Amino acid sequence: MSVTELFATRTEGMHASEIRELLKLLDQPEIISFAGGIPDPALFPRVEFAEALAWATSDTEAAQSLQYAPSEGYTPLREWIVRYMATLGVSCAVDNVLITAGSQQALDYLGKLFLDPKDTALVGWPTYLGALGAFNAYQPVYGRIDPRANRSAEEITQKAASRGGRVKFAYLSADFANPTGLTFDRAEREAILAKADALDIAVIEDGAYQALRYSGTAYPPMLALEQARKGDMEACRTIYCGSFSKTLAPGLRVGWVVAAKPVIQQMVLMKQAADLQTATLNQMAVARVAEAVFDSHVEKLREVYGHRLNAMLASLGHHMPEGVDWTRPEGGMFVWMHLPEGMDGAELLAQALRTQKIAFVPGGAFFADGSNRNTIRLNFSLLDDKTIDEGIRRLGEALRAEMAK
Amino acid sequence: MSVTELFATRTEGMHASEIRELLKLLDQPEIISFAGGIPDPALFPRVEFAEALAWATSDTEAAQSLQYAPSEGYTPLREWIVRYMATLGVSCAVDNVLITAGSQQALDYLGKLFLDPKDTALVGWPTYLGALGAFNAYQPVYGRIDPRANRSAEEITQKAASRGGRVKFAYLSADFANPTGLTFDRAEREAILAKADALDIAVIEDGAYQALRYSGTAYPPMLALEQARKGDMEACRTIYCGSFSKTLAPGLRVGWVVAAKPVIQQMVLMKQAADLQTATLNQMAVARVAEAVFDSHVEKLREVYGHRLNAMLASLGHHMPEGVDWTRPEGGMFVWMHLPEGMDGAELLAQALRTQKIAFVPGGAFFADGSNRNTIRLNFSLLDDKTIDEGIRRLGEALRAEMAK
Repeated sequence: MSVTELFATRTEGMHASEIRELLKLLDQPEIISFAGGIPDPALFPRVEFAEALAWATSDTEAAQSLQYAPSEGYTPLREWIVRYMATLGVSCAVDNVLITAGSQQALDYLGKLFLDPKDTALVGWPTYLGALGAFNAYQPVYGRIDPRANRSAEEITQKAASRGGRVKFAYLSADFANPTGLTFDRAEREAILAKADALDIAVIEDGAYQALRYSGTAYPPMLALEQARKGDMEACRTIYCGSFSKTLAPGLRVGWVVAAKPVIQQMVLMKQAADLQTATLNQMAVARVAEAVFDSHVEKLREVYGHRLNAMLASLGHHMPEGVDWTRPEGGMFVWMHLPEGMDGAELLAQALRTQKIAFVPGGAFFADGSNRNTIRLNFSLLDDKTIDEGIRRLGEALRAEMAK
Repeated sequence: MSVTELFATRTEGMHASEIRELLKLLDQPEIISFAGGIPDPALFPRVEFAEALAWATSDTEAAQSLQYAPSEGYTPLREWIVRYMATLGVSCAVDNVLITAGSQQALDYLGKLFLDPKDTALVGWPTYLGALGAFNAYQPVYGRIDPRANRSAEEITQKAASRGGRVKFAYLSADFANPTGLTFDRAEREAILAKADALDIAVIEDGAYQALRYSGTAYPPMLALEQARKGDMEACRTIYCGSFSKTLAPGLRVGWVVAAKPVIQQMVLMKQAADLQTATLNQMAVARVAEAVFDSHVEKLREVYGHRLNAMLASLGHHMPEGVDWTRPEGGMFVWMHLPEGMDGAELLAQALRTQKIAFVPGGAFFADGSNRNTIRLNFSLLDDKTIDEGIRRLGEALRAEMAK
């Protein structure tokens, strides 16, 4: 017998991520890639990180930065996050903050925290496929969260029971969601919170793109809205996941969770058992860089990425044929496109790669049931105006060729 | 209802680690602490890490070091590990290596990979309590691995079936195990491998302390012995977990797994879903430092820690009363002590902290069933000879007081 036959049943739900597999293949320089969703390395605060790491490995700091540290995280970083959350309208204490190895790890831990097999996780349709990947390990079933839907809490609860479990949480990204780029407005946020109250479930708010607003007015995080209504963080069911990957740099793997203390305490135990702690060095460096330049650096990112988003939207207006439609985000890193009914995003990609040397992510993977294959995700954070325009022109050609089939 | 009532059943098995909770309390300078198991920060290769991080954040490298990277790990580090494993008698390829955020993460992923609820994990009695913590999340039951026991494979398999699952793996540390400091000799290693063949289970070999041998002759890792017998890495059931925490520095959280490719491939999917990747910056820095100074640095550690181990063993010989016994390890970071029958290590700690201002870890937590409470673990890696001698003298006083009760 092979060792693989000893694998747990949960491994049956673990598949390769289309996006990360694609990223490996798209290094060829002649391809214009709208795939991926990674920040522009030219915008990393490199000098600031070099300085912070020199400080962290100095004679006075290295005994701490290179050593083990408590699982909950480096206190000055947690304190910075408390101050940052206050600017978003969230009032919390250091004990409400856990540092994670990126917000992806927070999603894994939250799946582990809440999901027994066959429990229901409510997600967007589409949703971040990395969230589906993280949750899949805990063998849930998925339901659809939609603030405009009229299903009653009873209906949702009964459906979950008929599928063998309970509804445990709603996962969503309220700002510039991956993959659609869309944002829930205040009424939608309040509607979801009210539905979560009725269902008596947790809300996992993924704030990965929250800081990257390029136009329009910011809405408070769902956690801020819930706290404004309930008064006390400890009464809140919303669990906010933050990340430095899109604002400072992803290669350090530092993110955070803000939630009521019993949630954080259980997650600290989980982290202690799963990887002891997030790298001390990285937490110290991120704390120092955030303290020094977070606001001004994010302002710079907004300017550059906002310009690229506008360039993409303008190019789409010029080059797209009739019959396709796309979102007009006010932030984030993605534009989401609906192709004509019956067209398959994965087939379009195969054709476009071959004939036009462009790439993007087919949309089906972002749906828990693999439906809506006539969708694609376009990333604009890595390319300059001219390349965006040329790539979108080629996408138009590829679409016309596919429509003519 | 509180959100905590939504927690998954697996959280019932997650408790605070006695060791890490203790570490928080023992910062008071007047206490001589044999608790913990952390490297001496004075021995960190600080200058080398400062140089490596300056390189990694230089103009030419920062676009890589601060960016996302493939889940399997940074290729030059995986290549270094291939060469390192060869020095231990293991012949593997880069595709047999996964980089993890410390070897603790490898244990979490291996629990996730193999354990369905009620499956049996065979462990030492005692064993590393962090392994129990990692595995507990996947709700196994524990059986005892003992190379000198005569239980047949059928007996072990039937017992596991009667408990509702299958035997999935044996977890062990063959060299200077935490907490005993003891090493399996070649015959014991071969006996465990033969039993694993008979049971048709995986073997998880925790090599965290493997490099820290201060005297005596090194044995090949179990993976090397298995490969020598079976010829091909792909035919091996042993999964080797390595760590840089005890040799270079723990604060970077870099470890690795070497195993047959189907195991690594499934673990890569798991890592992709759970935290995307180990921090790129940390992998690049560790690769550079390991390449430059691994051998000479470990030589230095061996000299210093070996000296401290000898000091502790000599002090134990001088100060211990009749009726206690302890291990004589040839490496690692720990000495393990048996107290007289009926004495409780946790009660001794409470008394010793109060009356003698010394600390250590009570041994019960290292047993999957909490038995053998008349044991304690003593760490010697952090203290100089004189402090070790004074602390062990005080331990003798505390023991005499407890015996007189």
